[in-house]
Amino acid sequence: MTAHPAGPDTGLLSPVRAGTPVERAVGDEAWIQAMLDAEAALARAQAGLGTLPARAAAAITRAARAERLDLRRLAVEARESANPVVGLVRAFTAAVAEEDPKAAEYVHRGSTSQDIFDTGAMLVCDRALRLVHADLLRTATALDRLAARHRDTLMAGRTLTLHAVPTTFGLKAAGWGLLVREAAGRVDRLLDGRLPVSLGGAAGTLAGYLEYSAVDGAPAADPAAYATALSKAFAAETGLATAPLPWHALRSPVADAASALAFVTGALGKIAVDVQSMGRTEVGEVAEPPVAGRGASSAMPHKRNPVLATLIRSAALQVPALAGALTQCLVAEDERSGGVWHAEWLLLRECLRLAGGASHTAVELCEGLVVHEERMRANAAATGALMSSERIVAVLAPRLGRATVKRLLSESAGTAARTGRPLADILAEHPRIGPSLDPGELAELLDPATYTGAAASLVDHALERHRTS
Amino acid sequence: MTAHPAGPDTGLLSPVRAGTPVERAVGDEAWIQAMLDAEAALARAQAGLGTLPARAAAAITRAARAERLDLRRLAVEARESANPVVGLVRAFTAAVAEEDPKAAEYVHRGSTSQDIFDTGAMLVCDRALRLVHADLLRTATALDRLAARHRDTLMAGRTLTLHAVPTTFGLKAAGWGLLVREAAGRVDRLLDGRLPVSLGGAAGTLAGYLEYSAVDGAPAADPAAYATALSKAFAAETGLATAPLPWHALRSPVADAASALAFVTGALGKIAVDVQSMGRTEVGEVAEPPVAGRGASSAMPHKRNPVLATLIRSAALQVPALAGALTQCLVAEDERSGGVWHAEWLLLRECLRLAGGASHTAVELCEGLVVHEERMRANAAATGALMSSERIVAVLAPRLGRATVKRLLSESAGTAARTGRPLADILAEHPRIGPSLDPGELAELLDPATYTGAAASLVDHALERHRTS
Amino acid sequence: MTAHPAGPDTGLLSPVRAGTPVERAVGDEAWIQAMLDAEAALARAQAGLGTLPARAAAAITRAARAERLDLRRLAVEARESANPVVGLVRAFTAAVAEEDPKAAEYVHRGSTSQDIFDTGAMLVCDRALRLVHADLLRTATALDRLAARHRDTLMAGRTLTLHAVPTTFGLKAAGWGLLVREAAGRVDRLLDGRLPVSLGGAAGTLAGYLEYSAVDGAPAADPAAYATALSKAFAAETGLATAPLPWHALRSPVADAASALAFVTGALGKIAVDVQSMGRTEVGEVAEPPVAGRGASSAMPHKRNPVLATLIRSAALQVPALAGALTQCLVAEDERSGGVWHAEWLLLRECLRLAGGASHTAVELCEGLVVHEERMRANAAATGALMSSERIVAVLAPRLGRATVKRLLSESAGTAARTGRPLADILAEHPRIGPSLDPGELAELLDPATYTGAAASLVDHALERHRTS
Amino acid sequence: MTAHPAGPDTGLLSPVRAGTPVERAVGDEAWIQAMLDAEAALARAQAGLGTLPARAAAAITRAARAERLDLRRLAVEARESANPVVGLVRAFTAAVAEEDPKAAEYVHRGSTSQDIFDTGAMLVCDRALRLVHADLLRTATALDRLAARHRDTLMAGRTLTLHAVPTTFGLKAAGWGLLVREAAGRVDRLLDGRLPVSLGGAAGTLAGYLEYSAVDGAPAADPAAYATALSKAFAAETGLATAPLPWHALRSPVADAASALAFVTGALGKIAVDVQSMGRTEVGEVAEPPVAGRGASSAMPHKRNPVLATLIRSAALQVPALAGALTQCLVAEDERSGGVWHAEWLLLRECLRLAGGASHTAVELCEGLVVHEERMRANAAATGALMSSERIVAVLAPRLGRATVKRLLSESAGTAARTGRPLADILAEHPRIGPSLDPGELAELLDPATYTGAAASLVDHALERHRTS
Repeated sequence: MTAHPAGPDTGLLSPVRAGTPVERAVGDEAWIQAMLDAEAALARAQAGLGTLPARAAAAITRAARAERLDLRRLAVEARESANPVVGLVRAFTAAVAEEDPKAAEYVHRGSTSQDIFDTGAMLVCDRALRLVHADLLRTATALDRLAARHRDTLMAGRTLTLHAVPTTFGLKAAGWGLLVREAAGRVDRLLDGRLPVSLGGAAGTLAGYLEYSAVDGAPAADPAAYATALSKAFAAETGLATAPLPWHALRSPVADAASALAFVTGALGKIAVDVQSMGRTEVGEVAEPPVAGRGASSAMPHKRNPVLATLIRSAALQVPALAGALTQCLVAEDERSGGVWHAEWLLLRECLRLAGGASHTAVELCEGLVVHEERMRANAAATGALMSSERIVAVLAPRLGRATVKRLLSESAGTAARTGRPLADILAEHPRIGPSLDPGELAELLDPATYTGAAASLVDHALERHRTS
Repeated sequence: MTAHPAGPDTGLLSPVRAGTPVERAVGDEAWIQAMLDAEAALARAQAGLGTLPARAAAAITRAARAERLDLRRLAVEARESANPVVGLVRAFTAAVAEEDPKAAEYVHRGSTSQDIFDTGAMLVCDRALRLVHADLLRTATALDRLAARHRDTLMAGRTLTLHAVPTTFGLKAAGWGLLVREAAGRVDRLLDGRLPVSLGGAAGTLAGYLEYSAVDGAPAADPAAYATALSKAFAAETGLATAPLPWHALRSPVADAASALAFVTGALGKIAVDVQSMGRTEVGEVAEPPVAGRGASSAMPHKRNPVLATLIRSAALQVPALAGALTQCLVAEDERSGGVWHAEWLLLRECLRLAGGASHTAVELCEGLVVHEERMRANAAATGALMSSERIVAVLAPRLGRATVKRLLSESAGTAARTGRPLADILAEHPRIGPSLDPGELAELLDPATYTGAAASLVDHALERHRTS
Repeated sequence: MTAHPAGPDTGLLSPVRAGTPVERAVGDEAWIQAMLDAEAALARAQAGLGTLPARAAAAITRAARAERLDLRRLAVEARESANPVVGLVRAFTAAVAEEDPKAAEYVHRGSTSQDIFDTGAMLVCDRALRLVHADLLRTATALDRLAARHRDTLMAGRTLTLHAVPTTFGLKAAGWGLLVREAAGRVDRLLDGRLPVSLGGAAGTLAGYLEYSAVDGAPAADPAAYATALSKAFAAETGLATAPLPWHALRSPVADAASALAFVTGALGKIAVDVQSMGRTEVGEVAEPPVAGRGASSAMPHKRNPVLATLIRSAALQVPALAGALTQCLVAEDERSGGVWHAEWLLLRECLRLAGGASHTAVELCEGLVVHEERMRANAAATGALMSSERIVAVLAPRLGRATVKRLLSESAGTAARTGRPLADILAEHPRIGPSLDPGELAELLDPATYTGAAASLVDHALERHRTS
Repeated sequence: MTAHPAGPDTGLLSPVRAGTPVERAVGDEAWIQAMLDAEAALARAQAGLGTLPARAAAAITRAARAERLDLRRLAVEARESANPVVGLVRAFTAAVAEEDPKAAEYVHRGSTSQDIFDTGAMLVCDRALRLVHADLLRTATALDRLAARHRDTLMAGRTLTLHAVPTTFGLKAAGWGLLVREAAGRVDRLLDGRLPVSLGGAAGTLAGYLEYSAVDGAPAADPAAYATALSKAFAAETGLATAPLPWHALRSPVADAASALAFVTGALGKIAVDVQSMGRTEVGEVAEPPVAGRGASSAMPHKRNPVLATLIRSAALQVPALAGALTQCLVAEDERSGGVWHAEWLLLRECLRLAGGASHTAVELCEGLVVHEERMRANAAATGALMSSERIVAVLAPRLGRATVKRLLSESAGTAARTGRPLADILAEHPRIGPSLDPGELAELLDPATYTGAAASLVDHALERHRTS
């Protein structure tokens, strides 16, 4: 087969991540570098346990630089072995030989493709997830500020797309912030010990590692102890965790990462659709941060499109499907699967960079969100009386019975909608309701600003919790 | 619209759960009962705080029995409001009125459909997940026993569908057990505080609850304190947790449940495909527990189909897709969504009962799995020498160089495959390899039983960890 | 295992289909009846070819009534064989024996579970899809009426959630109608020959059918001809098509149905989100058909929730995931899969009834949609001048250069947004733009009603196409 | 934001497509080129209708070369407008200006981002799908050859992972071929008129095109006729079809492509899992085409991994999820969506290149598949008698009653499995069965080669159908 060059992955079809830091952290070169880091860490771990010459480990570490390798060639050769590690080991061994011919013999000693690939993948995850985590925390901080500032900013609470009862924008922002902190928490849990090295050898018994340890060093007095020690040393050298068992076909780490990343884009997607709904031309309650040239249309000079929310939403629509497919990869047959493992790679990277791009985008959206309080108030005022219908029911229920009041209010609301007359007038004139309420009480009851319930204190509690968590 | 009876859901199209305990725990009647439990708990919580007559709470609690209601009518009426709670409240209010007419006034006091539905859903989850958790623990215990018993049972380790290097069946069973314990851990985390009551009122401000508390009791001196107290009391009455904020449109609890359930079926699906692969006619290493009549074919009297693994696998193929769709429901617009929330219900129940059915089925599969050790040994022996090729490379590498040995072994293995001659003979006669190894050493090196690496000690560690966790 | 009754499937968690005709058409009883229809058709087909006594076929046909069987028992027994047909054949044979003991011997003659299940499933699909198809055509007809009536009804065209350029509601309705007709076309293609009988025998060779034909009749002179004849006769008796080959593990018919059904809910979901967006309180351009009591909230008497759009959207969020999983079931191993086939059943039924419920709901939504033309006009007028910015660019481009005009218009639009002044005034006063346009021309250019492009003629073309297709 | 270079997309994580022709056909540069082709075709179409200078169209066409543009810059800039077209038009206009400054004024005349992007996407689809189609036909041809050659090659038919009844390898290959031809048919239907140009202008009314046509040419006497003529001319210039209506938010073309591509990988995935099952060490009935160095392991010199099937399977696990997400994008709100459209791009490209890579890989797998007939026969012989159990039932049913025979055979098969004695002996000695069959008849009945039913004639029919279709 002729090798057609695939050309650069410029991010053209995925602007949510184009140019964001996560993109570089998960690119092909980063992936190769992470696998080389795994090879080098393995050599150092073996050297530390006396089963590989220290000088070889040093040479291997020095040579472990992705820029020395021809990535495209590795990719195309990967078709021959269904994974890129076989070719990588060959090319890397040659690179080590240039450093130190004797050291070349010790590359990938006792190891197997999947150990290197999966350890590399976890290093990539670790690096990318730290970016995601930091961006989520920045986003959450921005949302806390919005929540505090707008603790009492009246707006219409909307349910099933319609004005329901009043709320405050602070409560909405606090809810967004909670979701984002929960997302950060799920990422943090991964970073705190869920991302393990892969160390199993050809079929998860570490037999190759043990055999070479005997060949290269003194035969291990206790093979079990050596296996444990090697695993710990490898983890220490990479900065990852150890795994309870070799996980070639026990794919929890990948399933867990997928699940956390789908949560991340889901949380951010919730913010995005709210920003879009609230920013609709007729609603106009929020706008994206104004940036010269941002949001331009190729046709319409007046447009300032909500591009950040659009980008985030595009990620939120993709990641759950990718993550669902990754979860399905738990069903991996045998000691190492022929296809299920291979299906994970692209999906995992896309989840990482879509979630990373969305997180990066969310920082900008939330830090710069423009809030039009006056539009919120005006919109709420337009239906303010109606939004108090629940309250009138509560107040009149003891006097007229709840079911009766509910029916009367439903009729009156219908009249208001049909005729355009203010609900206050209709209620005041109503033969059964009017007499039960004095006009002052009615005006007070129908003022949406007095019916935001516990919104403000819910904001306080949420912010207090964030400060102390 | 005429109400066509939907007829019974017998489980006909989902045998993985037909007749298992989880089925009843998540059925329509269980769901209605859970919503009634939520209504009753809410009334008791309000009564406990002095904002609802104790006598009314008692009557509401007495009336809260699903068997009093016409479920089919509730379901069909649900089309009019897009959820079943509006009709449920109407019917339940009538039922309470029969107990105590005055109490009827206090049903669903200050509440909203979603508070009741979601609290009910979490109660259903709680009940179903306890069943799942117990079955996972039983499965894990059975797998531990298998791992212990077969700690040293030689079998071929298989990668990309082919014999790779030797392993032990104990290590495989320990891996299965680890996955199942991890699944149980994810479920346990949900049961330990992740399943909250829903308490927000019409749009998440608790305004209705506060308004009625003032109407029915003394106006709360501190609305915020009352909101907090009501949430705690509601949680205490239901046995669920409190939520950090009203979560009508912050769907973490459902996304978390989905994610845990997809992990459950993924873990069990891994076991199922391994059992199927190892049970293939030509392999014959395991068989499902023999039960009279089980696994019969409608055509072939000799068949004993692996029905338990088949059922589990059927669940593992469905749940990730359903769970992925549930995760996407994090993207819920406004204070309460018009459609996204509604999409969750069926998906959540199916995830629960597919995972519950799979867990129940896994208990039977793993407790009764028949292990044919002699077939494992025989299969391993058939390629035993080849499976030691990695080892020969290790041993000869210092003498001949690793790359050279690898090439020679690859050629010799090819010769063995082509000619059918034993690898031992080919190696012994090989001009470069033969002289490097004495016949005794070669025989020892090619005996698969001596090349299981750290398999046994990995089993020990895993079992030790399970004992102490 | 104790058989816990699953209880009725009332549709409680799936109001989109509760009480709609499709629900009954795909219920457990309908499924069993379809499988019995398959058994009876098979017997008649064999009788027609002289390889089964006509009297037995008649008795089998008479006995093929689902109401005779204990569905729940069949469901629970299905766990023993991983499918419900083994038990069904047993129970049905007993039922036939009551009609005619000799005929019992001829039940399921030469057949296998999957032949009966899959033929039954295709019968269920056929019946359900006819309902779907009819509802889609009614919906499309309603949309054509809307398109014709509102061919020239001005409204704001919205892109990325913002007013873009003017359009007409007729064009929007025509677009909805096109999608729905395309959906109907995809369903129609299935009904027109894509739903085949399943006839393969134990492993797709029809060996059992041939063997029994020789036993029961004269040995077929030409087995191949008999196989073909049986397939045609079976198809004729059921009203389904023949398959090119036995499809136990070639799952095109199911994948095709899944794909068509996902298209159906996608098309309807598009309408639902548009109706919801246009019905938002601040927009108010459309409303769902008013029905007494419809759309009521359990808390807020003033609410008239868009319940039909909500139900449709709930289906549109679920079906693509279920259909994706069904498509994955193309990857079925061996002559018949152990798990993949079994994963299809529940998913297929849910796709059918969610799509069927959504179609039924869409008829009501589209036939009764309330269109507030004056709100459409008012909303369009509010930004009418801005929506003409593209046009001003076009007109002035030859005079000032397109890039320059675009920049000037972008600035002027910004000024209008910032100051609230009419764009017309800003442009008229603009030192470069003002002189290029006389006031009358400017007013004409900025009138959105004169800038709907080819909207009306696109509507005409679409309606013409529908009339002639 | 600093633009971090994303680096090359080498295909490292997706070896199924690395280096295959489809990769280049859908790469970023191909995508940009297709969008430039769309711009040029639009200009030529407008010129052909007299509303754009022919000289400008020629200059635009000359300048439309992707290699002139800085792709990475376009990608990063795309974040500012949420799509790459805004920047592309800017850069392309500059490139045209270098050719002919006056022509620059006519770039993207009356157009909108989505018209160009979607037309470009359809061009990319068209080009990629032609590659897919050709590879599917080659694969099908190879499978026809296999089917013909092995029309009578006896093998065990396997159901639920176990030997069921005999079949022939030819029938299996014919089934694979049928699926692949069906997949090709679905692709062909797209190529035959389902891939349309996108021509709607800012919000689907073509207003901009009409306005510029009046500005640049004479005002169209009949705007409707001009719109139609422009659409036809644009389609003719690109080689794509016209669309019934502007489809910015009517996403059938993308949903249809997704659905066809998921079918493609599903069909190929079926072959892959069968090849893997049949190639398992213990089964050994097929092997992948031997290629020097192919299938090597990084650890085990004896391994020849089934890499082609592994790669195909990896694609089959990914595409249905991606395609499901694409189908969900039918639910696009407004005249153009803010996020849903944007979610399609990456998913569509991955579906194309995964399906394209899988198709390319399948050619090699199916053209070179090594079939071990003797292993098929040996495996079938090992259980040949058992696989005839269905047949014995048929033959003895008239003498002993079917239920009785089935029970006796089931017991005898159990005895055979338990004792390892040949079924023939057990049956011959059986007090009820033995006397009913003479030894010669029994031997004949138990010979699997005589019980392949209509397998051979099904192969003939399938091949005949392929020849004539």
